[in-house]
Amino acid sequence: MPKPPEIKARRTLNETGVFHIEEIDLEFSNGEQRTYQRVVGSDEGAVLVVPLLDENTLLLIREYAAGVNQYELAFPKGHIEKGEDVLSAANREMQEETGYAARQLELLSSVSVAPGYIFHTTHIVLASDLYPQRLAGDEPEEIEVVPWKLSAFRQLLEQPDFTEARSQLALFLARDKLQSKTIE
Amino acid sequence: MPKPPEIKARRTLNETGVFHIEEIDLEFSNGEQRTYQRVVGSDEGAVLVVPLLDENTLLLIREYAAGVNQYELAFPKGHIEKGEDVLSAANREMQEETGYAARQLELLSSVSVAPGYIFHTTHIVLASDLYPQRLAGDEPEEIEVVPWKLSAFRQLLEQPDFTEARSQLALFLARDKLQSKTIE
Repeated sequence: MPKPPEIKARRTLNETGVFHIEEIDLEFSNGEQRTYQRVVGSDEGAVLVVPLLDENTLLLIREYAAGVNQYELAFPKGHIEKGEDVLSAANREMQEETGYAARQLELLSSVSVAPGYIFHTTHIVLASDLYPQRLAGDEPEEIEVVPWKLSAFRQLLEQPDFTEARSQLALFLARDKLQSKTIE
Repeated sequence: MPKPPEIKARRTLNETGVFHIEEIDLEFSNGEQRTYQRVVGSDEGAVLVVPLLDENTLLLIREYAAGVNQYELAFPKGHIEKGEDVLSAANREMQEETGYAARQLELLSSVSVAPGYIFHTTHIVLASDLYPQRLAGDEPEEIEVVPWKLSAFRQLLEQPDFTEARSQLALFLARDKLQSKTIE
């Protein structure tokens, strides 16, 4: 493993209220010097939840995604609040976005989205043993909840509005976990 | 499918040389008004390549990732240049980062990374029938090339420096594609 570069200086380049952009001056172990920019997310990170309504039914949501300016089919997700633990955040986001709470919550993986450019972690959580319970969210319009059969796994991957890498990965991770449980 | 919100105004909030941040004023079909910020990537997007050295060996790279300030194990990736097609970009990035070119290149999927906040597409490409050929890249230090057995799939997912959602997803997609080819 190479020796990490030394951070010679770091400064806030921009703070837009949503995005915090930082510039860092680095010296690599071979003497090369570079200046990189990165987006620095919250220390708490985010959760993405795979809600399992029954053993063969997942819940997805369809909502407007401003980054790509279109409606996107994806798993519920959101930022973790300060002082909130990962599983509580997952349970809260699910209640806000799908109207279900979970009695069972399990961390499947913690991933980065673009480690070269963004400091950010997303925790992928499998939620099961659901019951109806809604929390008010801050969404501008009602979110469409879309039940999807796990057996229609391939068709979901082919949906033109199911583009998000994290949601696609979460689908594979959930399927693997459920298959291994069946084998146990 | 709900009617997409109307974009009432859009303006560049910040242009850092690396990140272009835009602010958009939206009116949803129910009359709700919101202002969102987003990072706008290049229209060309990026490629992420899964190089298949032989039927059971993948090539990964380990390089410094400034966003998370640590060395990361991931598949080779990079921006598509203006006028370059997806498969040519994949073949170029692979030559710059691994020292191999491919005779066979196949698009597996095109994904978004954070559609709520970022306009960006990554094209995931499977590369096979490799031969040694290096192109000079612009990396600050030599990139470590890490061969990995496809049969050690599970161990790769458990590596603490293999955190990137796109790379993890690409691993699942490549495995599925290779399994379906074996079945054919």
